[in-house]
Formats: sequence, C-alpha cells, structure tokens
Amino acid sequence: MRPEDARTRLAALGFGTADVETLFAHFDDAERRGKLGHGHARIEWLEAQELDPAARPVKASALPGFDRWESRGALGYLVLAEICAELSEAGPWPVRVVVADAFPTGHLGYWVRWLAEAGLVAALTASSPARLPHPDGGEPLVGTTPLAIGLPNPEGEPIVVDVSMGAVTYGDVIRGAAQPEQLVPFGGEQAHKAFALAVGLEGLISSFVGDTHGIVLVAAKPEFSHFAAELRERAGGLRLPGDA
Amino acid sequence: MRPEDARTRLAALGFGTADVETLFAHFDDAERRGKLGHGHARIEWLEAQELDPAARPVKASALPGFDRWESRGALGYLVLAEICAELSEAGPWPVRVVVADAFPTGHLGYWVRWLAEAGLVAALTASSPARLPHPDGGEPLVGTTPLAIGLPNPEGEPIVVDVSMGAVTYGDVIRGAAQPEQLVPFGGEQAHKAFALAVGLEGLISSFVGDTHGIVLVAAKPEFSHFAAELRERAGGLRLPGDA
Repeated sequence: MRPEDARTRLAALGFGTADVETLFAHFDDAERRGKLGHGHARIEWLEAQELDPAARPVKASALPGFDRWESRGALGYLVLAEICAELSEAGPWPVRVVVADAFPTGHLGYWVRWLAEAGLVAALTASSPARLPHPDGGEPLVGTTPLAIGLPNPEGEPIVVDVSMGAVTYGDVIRGAAQPEQLVPFGGEQAHKAFALAVGLEGLISSFVGDTHGIVLVAAKPEFSHFAAELRERAGGLRLPGDA
Repeated sequence: MRPEDARTRLAALGFGTADVETLFAHFDDAERRGKLGHGHARIEWLEAQELDPAARPVKASALPGFDRWESRGALGYLVLAEICAELSEAGPWPVRVVVADAFPTGHLGYWVRWLAEAGLVAALTASSPARLPHPDGGEPLVGTTPLAIGLPNPEGEPIVVDVSMGAVTYGDVIRGAAQPEQLVPFGGEQAHKAFALAVGLEGLISSFVGDTHGIVLVAAKPEFSHFAAELRERAGGLRLPGDA
C-alpha cells in the first residue's frame, strides 16, 4: 500500500489529520520492521470495525506515581500515543506507572522506542483476546500478552525488546502464514515458561483494568543509562533486540 | 539437612535469631518446592562467602510512588524480606515501585507469593552475574534475570509466576545436574525471545541501580482481584503457575 493510499483510507474512516498521522506512523513502522500483522493490513481490519473516530482518551486520574487513562472509545493506538507524548514531555519523576483500557495497541516496541528516544526507560505490557492454550492443551486461556522494554542509549541506538508469548502471531494465523495450532506459548518443551509469563502479565493488567483489554506501563528517567551502550560493546556486533 | 541443623549452621555464621528464621524459611520453601539450587545447598554456599551478618538494609529514600532501599552489605534475601514485610503492612497505594541493590535474592516466587498472600499484586525481577550467551553464541552477556508475578486470589490459592530466562538453572550446573553448555536462554529455536527478555529486564534494573546486582519490584493493592479465581475455573484443573 502506498503511503498516500494508507492516509486516504484512514481519513475516510473519519479520523482527523493528527490521528491519521499517528495511526499511519505506527502501521508504517510495523511494515518497515517486517511486523506485517501490525502493518498496513490493520487498515483493512479497521475498516471492518465499528469505530468512533471522534473519541478522545483522557487522563482520568493522576495520583502520586500513578496515572489512569481511559480510552473513552478511542483506539488503543491513540491512547498510547497520548500517553507517550505526555510522558516524553513531562519526564516522569521519579517513576510513573500508567494504566489504561487500551486496545488494540499494535506492536509494543514502537511505544517503548518512542520513550527510549526521549531518554526514558520503560516496560509495557498489553492484554488481548485469549489465543494461547495451556501447554497441556485445551481451549485458549490467555492472550499473547507481549512484554516490551525500551532502554535508552545516550551514545547510540536504544535497545528495544518486544516479546510476544506466542510461538507465532495471531496476525500470521489470519493471513495464512501460520496454522492455528501453531499459536501456542513459545518455548517448545519449556512452553510452560512463556505460558506462565502470559498468565502473570495478563493478571497484572487485569488487576488494574478488570475484565477489559488494557495496558500497564512503567516509565522512568533512568538514574544510570549506560547499560545499552555497554551491552552493545560486550556483544561485539551481535544483533541485539530491536535492531534492524 | 534437618531443620535444626540448618538453623544451627545459619546461627554459626553470626546471624541473629530473626535473620536465621528469615533465611531458613526461604531455603526451606525452595527445598519443599523442588527448587534445590535455592534450597539448603545455599547454606553451604553462604558458608564460603564473606558476610557481614550484622548488616541491615535501610530505606534510603521514599518519594511519591517510589522507594529506594540500600542493602548496606546485607544479603539480598534480608533486603527483600524487609521490603515485603513493609509493603504487606503498609498496603501500597495506589502503587509502589521499589528498587534495591539486593543480591542474592533466591527464588523470586517466594517474595511475590508473600505479597500475594497479603492481598497485593506484584511483579519482581532481579539481576545476577552474566550466565546467558547470545543465541548466536559467544561469552555470557546477561544473567538469568527471572521475572516473578504474584496474583492474589481472595477465593483460594494465588497464582505465582516465577520464570528464569535460562533453559536450566545455574544451581543445576554447579551441582552437576546440567551441563554448562545447557545454560542458554530457554526457547530452543525461539531462544532470542528469552534472551531479549533477559536483556530488557537487566537493563531496566540497571537503570535504577547501575553496575551492581539489584531488584525492581512493582506492587499494588489490586482494584480488581478476580483474575486468579476465574483463570483457575477456566483452566478446569490444569496446573497453573506456582501450583504444587
């Protein structure tokens, strides 16, 4: 899809110029990183959803070290964009935990990279429909529940971790690149580990947002920020998480 | 090792009665759960270390939503015990991020179970010496960097996730139950995922504590706490993380 076509189709859904750019930037980044399930294909998916393009997320409460945002019907992408913009500008101190009923949120590496490029360290997880069964089998019990962590690097490229607990993505299944039975916790013989992480992260999110899909984000201005540069040096050119 | 022998040997290291009980409780729990690398064998390991049994951790600063503890030379177990005791009593609200230069910290599931039994949801990660190489090979770059998440359950057993990013434990290697070359990120063909998680979590900890081993803990009084009970029901008797 050409960029101008993507923007035109997003605008045709009723989104204003700023939201079109926010959504396009996310999908386009996914496309360029080869995360096709979160790329342009999502525009077609959005065209099949009931949307309220005028909905705006709001920060419903701000307590010491803790913000709660509400989507108020806005797409999760737009909720996270507002959160990242605010954190990047405000520079959370000493630390901020942010929760929201945000869905869908795309590839989480995008958001923690945004924060890392603003000099913030952040960990972000998001819940989604149940897709992963228990390693012993049965119906899907938990979502793929990714965990993303962004590590700023004042001397160069940040490190951007973005790990889904599924062996394949749901996007791969719907576009036919993987079979439904491959959508299990990753890890083969040790799939109980990825299953456990999905359970724990989903439970953590649920404890803040209840029975809806949502996010938990922890962000801080790092007191020490040499880890990324030092690891790159020790790794001696080996590809690190988030590298192209 | 008989409990009275374990206690006698810990006391012989110079620890006072309360610390002996704290350490014994942790090692004994590990033993009963089959986590032998964190069990009684650790008493022998402690006997070979230089220890300051009189050292006391302190809460060095308390900012909005954020506590920084310092070990001041105390064992990591004792640092985490102080933190868990204080959080359980105080009931963090709305959320608390706690960091410390704590090492060694044993099996992290123990600490988040403590908090879960006090009704708190918590996520805890800890750094340790580099043991895991990059999936493409080379020298060890990051620790096994476990992530533990405790989900309280007002209606029954909590769910206690405790996942090391290593395919085997370092304890298994030193007691000969695993070969050194098996100490790699778990996941087989998808070991890059466990490696990425170890990198991200270690970097997150490092951003708060710098070049020392430490912990990052996020704890909260959950607004919603029915996830554990509901998942148990949906799982229909399948073993869930932390179950005996």
